[in-house]
Amino acid sequence: MTFDFDGWRTTQLKRVETALDGFIDAHSPASLGTAMRYGVLGGGKRLRALLVLAACDVVGGNCEAALRAACAVEMIHAYSLIHDDMPCMDNDVLRRGKPTVHVAYGEAQALLAGDALQALAFEILTPDDANIPDEVQAKLCRLLARASGPDGMAGGQAIDLASVSKGLAEAELKRMHELKTGALLKAAVDMGAACCMAASHNQKDLYKNLGLYGAAVGLAFQVVDDILDVTADAVTLGKTAGKDAAQNKPTYVALMGLDAAERYADELLMAALAALDACCLPNDAALRALAIQLVKRQS
Amino acid sequence: MTFDFDGWRTTQLKRVETALDGFIDAHSPASLGTAMRYGVLGGGKRLRALLVLAACDVVGGNCEAALRAACAVEMIHAYSLIHDDMPCMDNDVLRRGKPTVHVAYGEAQALLAGDALQALAFEILTPDDANIPDEVQAKLCRLLARASGPDGMAGGQAIDLASVSKGLAEAELKRMHELKTGALLKAAVDMGAACCMAASHNQKDLYKNLGLYGAAVGLAFQVVDDILDVTADAVTLGKTAGKDAAQNKPTYVALMGLDAAERYADELLMAALAALDACCLPNDAALRALAIQLVKRQS
Repeated sequence: MTFDFDGWRTTQLKRVETALDGFIDAHSPASLGTAMRYGVLGGGKRLRALLVLAACDVVGGNCEAALRAACAVEMIHAYSLIHDDMPCMDNDVLRRGKPTVHVAYGEAQALLAGDALQALAFEILTPDDANIPDEVQAKLCRLLARASGPDGMAGGQAIDLASVSKGLAEAELKRMHELKTGALLKAAVDMGAACCMAASHNQKDLYKNLGLYGAAVGLAFQVVDDILDVTADAVTLGKTAGKDAAQNKPTYVALMGLDAAERYADELLMAALAALDACCLPNDAALRALAIQLVKRQS
Repeated sequence: MTFDFDGWRTTQLKRVETALDGFIDAHSPASLGTAMRYGVLGGGKRLRALLVLAACDVVGGNCEAALRAACAVEMIHAYSLIHDDMPCMDNDVLRRGKPTVHVAYGEAQALLAGDALQALAFEILTPDDANIPDEVQAKLCRLLARASGPDGMAGGQAIDLASVSKGLAEAELKRMHELKTGALLKAAVDMGAACCMAASHNQKDLYKNLGLYGAAVGLAFQVVDDILDVTADAVTLGKTAGKDAAQNKPTYVALMGLDAAERYADELLMAALAALDACCLPNDAALRALAIQLVKRQS
């Protein structure tokens, strides 16, 4: 039977949007909640959330934990976009086809909404009343914190800030992207897998291979992002195109040229699929489809 | 035997500074680490860290967990100051007698250093290799996230933003401060207590009374802050004085007058000490001294 990826995605996206809406509604005071909601809801491919849910599915993990983890990862991603778009960072006015949060609500609200979303991500991972073992809660916080902070996304962003208008060698560029974009995408896969608590020797191999899949997918995402920055237009992208080149930011396209970057993205896709093959999972169709969709996307 | 509060404090402060330095050193890339370090180290009364350590002491909790919790709370506090000082928020140039982080390192680094410190707080609460039970790790994350996010500090900050140049009734003012300042101070006490895992019926009463102590201390801190804003000068405060009044921000002094605010601070101190009395702890001298010091402070 062929896997109905579009059907699966539609169902999962609905779960995620409803849960995100509910979490923000339950936790956020009026004015702040409006800016948080604007920054998180109504847009975005939810790739990270789908990776969490698909990875949880293949290991037979705790569904409530996975839904919370999916929302937490999307909150971290959304906060990073809100802050990155601010005037003191990328000064971007367009995101997902809409004015950015600071354009719509002012810089103070944007700063605060981002801060609140980061905290809320950890809050929803650690419910007091839900049926999620403390071991899972602690592990989810550990994975998310490491992927978000100075050892992850924020650290990559710092390298990015320091590198504008100066060249980066391929190894440095890879390191920057591993941290800035890759760490959270890899964490999404690892967090999905962490929703299952059973652990045997075989499963250690499984987690290792899922980690390799997450790392390949995370790097591929950024390579494709760099490609789209030069090949797509703003309407398709939903954000300003050509910005990296205009700002002389280091990208894979600038480093290796467009053709080689496209070949590299394909190689990473092959590596991701090979890591999945090594997992020998009967139900890996969603993870497989997500990797392909991510590399073949047009926006 | 009289409790040597100054000696205790000196010892604890040294532990906290060394640990903070080590955590930032271990986790932060060069340029970002410099701004993070500047924002966190070398200043501050470390009241929140001392509350964590003192509360852990009275319940006989896990010392390593408490030291991590103390550092995590200070990281959250430091990030909130860095972001609050930015031009789009309070636009303050002086903090702890030094230029604020965005003055010293630029707005982009300040934004990012704050973001990274929030994530690092949760990262150090969830070590992979240390002897801290998952139950404690999850509980510490739960308490800290709730106190930092939209249900806590960020939520209070949002009310504050919305209230400038418009009056707040006492109940609203109290709510704002409970969230903005009180939640993290109360969380410091609760997190210290959470470092002990034993739980009996008697201890439930103990935790409840420690919570009352934390809430009273948290509110008292803000009342005294409002008093000092009108009675102290910038050199003593280490930050710009008289700002709240100049910006027409709602404060306890504006609401109830200076004399009544001072009486209220004393009442809250009495309530905090009464809650400690109800705990019937043999070794509560540090918590007692911290409450007194907090209300009687001159800066």
